[in-house]
Amino acid sequence: MNWWLASYKQPDQNSKDLALARQAQLTKPTGALGDLETIAVKIAALQCTSRPYVNAPWISLFAGDHGVMAEQVSAYPQEVTRQMLLNFASGGACISVIAQQYQAKLQVIDCGTVGEAHHMQGVEYQAVAAGTQNFAKTQAMTEEQCVQAMTIGKNSVDQAAAHHADMFIAGEMGIGNTCSASALACLLLNESAEVLTGVGTGITDEKLVHKKQVIQQAVDLHQAQVGNDPIQILAAVGGFEIAAMVGAYLRCAQVGLPILVDGFISSVAALLAVRIQPLTQQWMLFGHQSAEYGHRRILQALDVQPIVQLNLRLGEGSGAGVALGVVKLACALHNQMATFSEAAVTGDKQ
Amino acid sequence: MNWWLASYKQPDQNSKDLALARQAQLTKPTGALGDLETIAVKIAALQCTSRPYVNAPWISLFAGDHGVMAEQVSAYPQEVTRQMLLNFASGGACISVIAQQYQAKLQVIDCGTVGEAHHMQGVEYQAVAAGTQNFAKTQAMTEEQCVQAMTIGKNSVDQAAAHHADMFIAGEMGIGNTCSASALACLLLNESAEVLTGVGTGITDEKLVHKKQVIQQAVDLHQAQVGNDPIQILAAVGGFEIAAMVGAYLRCAQVGLPILVDGFISSVAALLAVRIQPLTQQWMLFGHQSAEYGHRRILQALDVQPIVQLNLRLGEGSGAGVALGVVKLACALHNQMATFSEAAVTGDKQ
Repeated sequence: MNWWLASYKQPDQNSKDLALARQAQLTKPTGALGDLETIAVKIAALQCTSRPYVNAPWISLFAGDHGVMAEQVSAYPQEVTRQMLLNFASGGACISVIAQQYQAKLQVIDCGTVGEAHHMQGVEYQAVAAGTQNFAKTQAMTEEQCVQAMTIGKNSVDQAAAHHADMFIAGEMGIGNTCSASALACLLLNESAEVLTGVGTGITDEKLVHKKQVIQQAVDLHQAQVGNDPIQILAAVGGFEIAAMVGAYLRCAQVGLPILVDGFISSVAALLAVRIQPLTQQWMLFGHQSAEYGHRRILQALDVQPIVQLNLRLGEGSGAGVALGVVKLACALHNQMATFSEAAVTGDKQ
Repeated sequence: MNWWLASYKQPDQNSKDLALARQAQLTKPTGALGDLETIAVKIAALQCTSRPYVNAPWISLFAGDHGVMAEQVSAYPQEVTRQMLLNFASGGACISVIAQQYQAKLQVIDCGTVGEAHHMQGVEYQAVAAGTQNFAKTQAMTEEQCVQAMTIGKNSVDQAAAHHADMFIAGEMGIGNTCSASALACLLLNESAEVLTGVGTGITDEKLVHKKQVIQQAVDLHQAQVGNDPIQILAAVGGFEIAAMVGAYLRCAQVGLPILVDGFISSVAALLAVRIQPLTQQWMLFGHQSAEYGHRRILQALDVQPIVQLNLRLGEGSGAGVALGVVKLACALHNQMATFSEAAVTGDKQ
């Protein structure tokens, strides 16, 4: 039942040393490729090889609806969550185009959206419930539902590993889910809603004031009860798609699959996973820093630097998708550049 | 003779408006793709189409040697410039791997390296002279040599345009050329060598002190003579490869070919081109911000934001090459994402 309490893998120090040694022999001054070197060396350690590669990235897109939408916290109606599921599956969404561009597998899972059970081509229906409860009034989900949602993520990673995926990206879709992510961030960082609430995919100033009030109300309602327990925090104000991401990240660290983390919501899920099991963090690369202020705070709490900063605020795994291109290039350079001796180039003489 | 005084092209406002209108219809909140939207819309205006694309990028790698190497300003011996020419052409250098990765044409030109004339497979020998003069003692090149080097760049762009290139990257190679770039930056920005000199591809602290002294000596020697005249500044302390880049950038703006600018040395060349003809700047995208402090100052002087910041300090066009992946993705998203009506997704309701 509590599968996340099982053992975790460790990056391989020998592969890291070999990768570092190779970087020092490539026809460039050592360190001249900056973060691209760091990325390649880190993936080498995670993939247990001196020649890291990202040829089979796997993207699991988890969707869920949020009871807190009863409080009118988004500019979009809730039916957009399901409409977008079809768009992901039929190739029209941002993350679909990114998956095509980088030959990534894109798995789309309905973890619990509002409405009847459905059969959409290319969408796996694994709903825990038809959306969470309104966390401004009650718990978003029971602890059993939370574990069920986490296990959706676990199962995705097991599938990815069985298909020999070499990099895992979790994306999310859920109208209102920056509201949930901000509430989670407040409880995890002991900060106020005023500080950690942003415009999400875009709302008016007036609606932002309202969104902050709703989140602060939820924080005040749950804080004493949940304390610092990450799974209780997740159950209180999280979402099914966020719990699935937490489960996926934990499982990646158990099976030894490198993770490329996306934006604000994904990073909150990453922080939850790290709070549950700190060993998870070594398996994570952070794709981007979004336009959402709370995201910067989460990255600071994890003490990590994102790969790109392009003012994205879309979710879906899109920022990790952009970073995927950089990660693939970092590996290509690591593997394909000539060494000083291969190219008969004289090294550093100082 | 003074071909850069001829007419310059303007970006197309109508294409920009059409591209903006398309971005507003794609299945995402308007602006949610941040800088990726800005990039796609800018390229649309430059390519005079509502559907921008980067399918045929062209990289011209200009190499040259520097007389100032008599002052011992680099950790590498001067023969590395020529050794690297062969590495570029045979596929082992960073920029070669990037060119393969993104199906870019890579043209390698010797604009003037130390030694006899040579015939290397895949390298065009167009040397102005066997390296520049030592600019700490005298002018790096005559004005005639400077124009000759600028015209090498012009001719490359004419070739790129004839081959229907849709994005132009200039790379550079030349042991000692951050020394030249810092001297150029000092004269262009009226700043001291203390502020604008960095470690380049890597030198000891002791050598950095010496490098600053050499550059300040050069600035003091030439400043009164050259004043604010960009071509005189270029001739006084520039390099053949830097002059070729300046000519290439100017020509891109004449023929209407979008430019992706690389790091410190390329950005100094970009600033020179903009000082010669301000209309050049609208044709430029800036690929990255390097680890070299002077680069940040040049980007500030141009009032531009780079696409990525990955602590690169290699040159060769490598930073622009990394950004090329982001630019290609920005265009793919612009062209391939579904609109709200195509995907039957409900738009913003606020």
